[in-house]
Amino acid sequence: MKDYPLLQQLNEPKDLMALPEDRLPALAEEIRGYMVDCVSQNGGHLAASLGAVELIIALHRVYTDEADRLIFDVGHQAYAHKILTGRRDAFRNLRQEGGLSGFPKREESPYDAFNTGHASTSLSAALGMVRAKELLHEPGHVAAVIGDGALTGGMAYEALDDGGDSKLPLVVVLNDNEMSISRNVGAMSRSLSRLRASSGYNRLKRFVVRVLERGMVGRRMSKNIEGFKNRIKRFVLQNTFFEEMGFTYLGPIDGHNIPQMIALLQEAKALERPVVVHVITQKGKGYSLSERNPEKFHGIAPFSPETGAVASSGAPSCSEVFGETLLQLAEEDKRVVAITAAMRDGTGLRPFFERFPERAFDVGIAEEHALTMAAGMAAEGLRPVAAIYSSFLQRAVDQLYHDICLQRLPVVIGVDRAGLVGQDGETHQGIYDPAMLCAIPHLSVYEPATLAELRAMIRLAVAREEPAAIRYCRGTLPEGEGEEPVVYGRWATLRAATDVVIIAAGPLVRSARSVADALNCGLVEARFYKPLDHELLDQLRKRGCKLLVAEENVAALSLYVAAYCPELVVRPLCLSDGPMPQATVARQRTLGGIDEAAMKKAVEELRTIHG
Amino acid sequence: MKDYPLLQQLNEPKDLMALPEDRLPALAEEIRGYMVDCVSQNGGHLAASLGAVELIIALHRVYTDEADRLIFDVGHQAYAHKILTGRRDAFRNLRQEGGLSGFPKREESPYDAFNTGHASTSLSAALGMVRAKELLHEPGHVAAVIGDGALTGGMAYEALDDGGDSKLPLVVVLNDNEMSISRNVGAMSRSLSRLRASSGYNRLKRFVVRVLERGMVGRRMSKNIEGFKNRIKRFVLQNTFFEEMGFTYLGPIDGHNIPQMIALLQEAKALERPVVVHVITQKGKGYSLSERNPEKFHGIAPFSPETGAVASSGAPSCSEVFGETLLQLAEEDKRVVAITAAMRDGTGLRPFFERFPERAFDVGIAEEHALTMAAGMAAEGLRPVAAIYSSFLQRAVDQLYHDICLQRLPVVIGVDRAGLVGQDGETHQGIYDPAMLCAIPHLSVYEPATLAELRAMIRLAVAREEPAAIRYCRGTLPEGEGEEPVVYGRWATLRAATDVVIIAAGPLVRSARSVADALNCGLVEARFYKPLDHELLDQLRKRGCKLLVAEENVAALSLYVAAYCPELVVRPLCLSDGPMPQATVARQRTLGGIDEAAMKKAVEELRTIHG
Repeated sequence: MKDYPLLQQLNEPKDLMALPEDRLPALAEEIRGYMVDCVSQNGGHLAASLGAVELIIALHRVYTDEADRLIFDVGHQAYAHKILTGRRDAFRNLRQEGGLSGFPKREESPYDAFNTGHASTSLSAALGMVRAKELLHEPGHVAAVIGDGALTGGMAYEALDDGGDSKLPLVVVLNDNEMSISRNVGAMSRSLSRLRASSGYNRLKRFVVRVLERGMVGRRMSKNIEGFKNRIKRFVLQNTFFEEMGFTYLGPIDGHNIPQMIALLQEAKALERPVVVHVITQKGKGYSLSERNPEKFHGIAPFSPETGAVASSGAPSCSEVFGETLLQLAEEDKRVVAITAAMRDGTGLRPFFERFPERAFDVGIAEEHALTMAAGMAAEGLRPVAAIYSSFLQRAVDQLYHDICLQRLPVVIGVDRAGLVGQDGETHQGIYDPAMLCAIPHLSVYEPATLAELRAMIRLAVAREEPAAIRYCRGTLPEGEGEEPVVYGRWATLRAATDVVIIAAGPLVRSARSVADALNCGLVEARFYKPLDHELLDQLRKRGCKLLVAEENVAALSLYVAAYCPELVVRPLCLSDGPMPQATVARQRTLGGIDEAAMKKAVEELRTIHG
Repeated sequence: MKDYPLLQQLNEPKDLMALPEDRLPALAEEIRGYMVDCVSQNGGHLAASLGAVELIIALHRVYTDEADRLIFDVGHQAYAHKILTGRRDAFRNLRQEGGLSGFPKREESPYDAFNTGHASTSLSAALGMVRAKELLHEPGHVAAVIGDGALTGGMAYEALDDGGDSKLPLVVVLNDNEMSISRNVGAMSRSLSRLRASSGYNRLKRFVVRVLERGMVGRRMSKNIEGFKNRIKRFVLQNTFFEEMGFTYLGPIDGHNIPQMIALLQEAKALERPVVVHVITQKGKGYSLSERNPEKFHGIAPFSPETGAVASSGAPSCSEVFGETLLQLAEEDKRVVAITAAMRDGTGLRPFFERFPERAFDVGIAEEHALTMAAGMAAEGLRPVAAIYSSFLQRAVDQLYHDICLQRLPVVIGVDRAGLVGQDGETHQGIYDPAMLCAIPHLSVYEPATLAELRAMIRLAVAREEPAAIRYCRGTLPEGEGEEPVVYGRWATLRAATDVVIIAAGPLVRSARSVADALNCGLVEARFYKPLDHELLDQLRKRGCKLLVAEENVAALSLYVAAYCPELVVRPLCLSDGPMPQATVARQRTLGGIDEAAMKKAVEELRTIHG
């Protein structure tokens, strides 16, 4: 800690109060240096956290009571909060197995008031807390920190609508860095730009607020003047979105000026009503590589702090292959359009956005709207393909069901980050979607085991003109070499059946192949979670094989296979429904009991069972 | 049709154009009479449709091209649209098996542009259509009709955010009847009230718009005047929510004045940009019983058109028992609070709202916010219980997973309308939730077969202080008579095991009992979908019983039982994942192959299988 003389004095939040205010900027610099140091070794969400250092210092200078609650939307921006709340040294093991989570976690610290990870939840949670404190007469103040990106999510609006109406002391700190993960979109974003551009106007407005609220006019007011005051209020005060929603709007303010923020946050806290504090920050602030390229440093693998270079993995990722293939399809068919919910880079769609900007749609962090809009497009003749991470698709299950599948509209969903995701941990695992998707009518669920199959599946799904979900893992898959061509509804026999047949899907096919070779059992690749390949299963039923069904998710395929083959011994090799914490994917497979050793053991056990 | 002289001339929408404008009010009256006539016989969603008659006539006078698209959010208000688009006579069989759907359906008519049923989808679908027409150079205009209730849903905001930014010709008709299903809530609702109260202000504003847009000032403008114009625009034009979102706002206007609406809709259509037309209607309009009590006539069973009397079913519904029990718990424990997403009446919570208004929360049609807010409340010591219909809970699967269950927060969900729902049909069936809920970590899923069990389960779930979902059916259940007490995780043996054991859940227990008695087989009531009663299942495994698992939903319980008992013959008796259309619940059970006869046959077949 010798490079961090101020930071090393801070073991818990109250130590922060002992620092004179004029040392806080230097502290911010130390925190940044420490963050870059740690994250360059382990990877993490750097840019957002670099931008929010001063904001978090200011928050901890204002919200000092142990009954106070700070909620960080998504949580990418909260690293300084972790460092300042007793986890400075532990921060070195951020996102590692057994180390600190990349997101706030109640289990990890009493200073983490609410677990986050998915966007746009903080205002609802904060309002719930405020209501609880009110009803139970508990002390303490609640503030939610939300980015302008997360504000594009509908549930944030639902919470503003309810919170503004409640008149309760809910402080919303809008951390406006002009981008969510990709650059921001939507009318709200434009509206924020106008606010940012209007600091003079806001100075005027704040003056009027003060005059009106402190009664400097009020004492001399007649009924007529009251009417005038209301008209003034209407025109001067209620012309931002937030005021329309019932919040007092304070700002915008420089999110790197600590004293200014402390003053404004104190004012917000003292108002004891719904308040939005609009803070302008720079994503990646204070680390020049990240300032120049914040998207690269949004979520980043270990990198060189000097050059920013990240070790290249070589093979293209599934996301990249998805993006490339879709781009080719779009060249061939003008009806093909691409949709993302704020994940242009993560989903490999950036080249599509560059080549066909008018046919590529980034709707913001708004998965629900994304899928129903896709349904509308499909109803009028387009062939939309939406790429959404598995864990975020949970946000749009109803839209998939109600708007796409009940109407059998030709929308294809690329379910990215399906399966285990590694260091992001519990909130981001793509292991629940099969259980949900397989229950939805008229939906086919594909999963490739090779990049070649992924390409073929995208083409097949678009050509079939019906609802389809193609699941593919984070990272990459083997390129594939001469497997059977992909045919709708057909699984592939990779090794002829013996007494035991492993039915494996996606990334588990590779280890299943070694096990099948080593133990001389059959191997089938389940290319579709839905429909099942009844013809192939019927053959296995005739032969009376024992089946091991291996899937990198909570039970789904294995359940349907077991139900379809009541007379066979069917053993699932899948994840339990328990949360899977952060670790490498390989370690998570071991922890979840689905690695190669577990598979081997399961086959051996199956052989001992009397079928 | 002799009472409906104008209506009988109208066989398709173009016939409407042949009527002189001064006959349209009389036509509206005829449509209302016909609606009351038909709905009093079959039941249906009357109040919203009565309020929207003039609006729908006006829309069909303006959107006359076959390439035009009208989308009705939810669809409760669209009866006049059905009657005017070739379905006048068929309307007599509304919501009956084989008859017209209660909601717009593309399969039913080329004039139904998009299927609806769940709230807040129309703007997304409409924007998708506008984008498709733009890209494919197809003709036609698109308008979405959305109620002020549906506007409380977050995805409507996501669509406004994207639509306003798009600058495309999307016309949003805000059908503002000051209520969703219950009376409306939230800041947006207050904002609309202010708009309604400000017609003078809006007249001024519209004058200014006209002056500015037609350039009456512009021709003489210097740069300075341009700046002035922008300031004026900022203060005068952009101080409503909709203008902040990038929409031109027109209104408010009387939604029962047809000529005025035609003029304003024509103006909106001609603007070729995002426009909101704010129309004020009266829910239940023109039928005095319904005007006085629109909530009663929101969705109503067959009734007497003279008195409004509905045949009483006698026994309390599951919803009523839920509401009563929760109210008792709230009397005993001050930490218990109730949450609904705009369904105070439907979920039986009205008595709770009356007794404990400060502990009862109606968040609007905002299921996502409802559950995450509940999580925030639970984190701070409350014991929230949220009642949500099964099909609407699909909206909040991610919040249940991410905010409640990953944190193991003590939130109880009352999953109302679980199972088959009858006349509301495909979009409202509560048959998908078990597949989704059983995959979620740390969540227990209860289902009672009697009202006594429902009461006991609510108490048990709240007392356990962990995430729980209690599913209960639409309508009622037997009161129950001396069954085993409800114990967490334990199923109930209702008839001792023989060679075959029926494992049945919820409303199917009653028919399973007759079948078990008739065919001398065992009967177990699965009171929990999750966890399974492993102890009981282990006994059945030891005995080598054949199992018939009966559940009124898409396969879930049967899958888990089959997977847990690999050596037993397990036969599911459940619904396929295909959509289940409207009919009586009894008929739907027959159509879905889960009625008593099917159960009997399945037991007999099981007996012929060599175990």
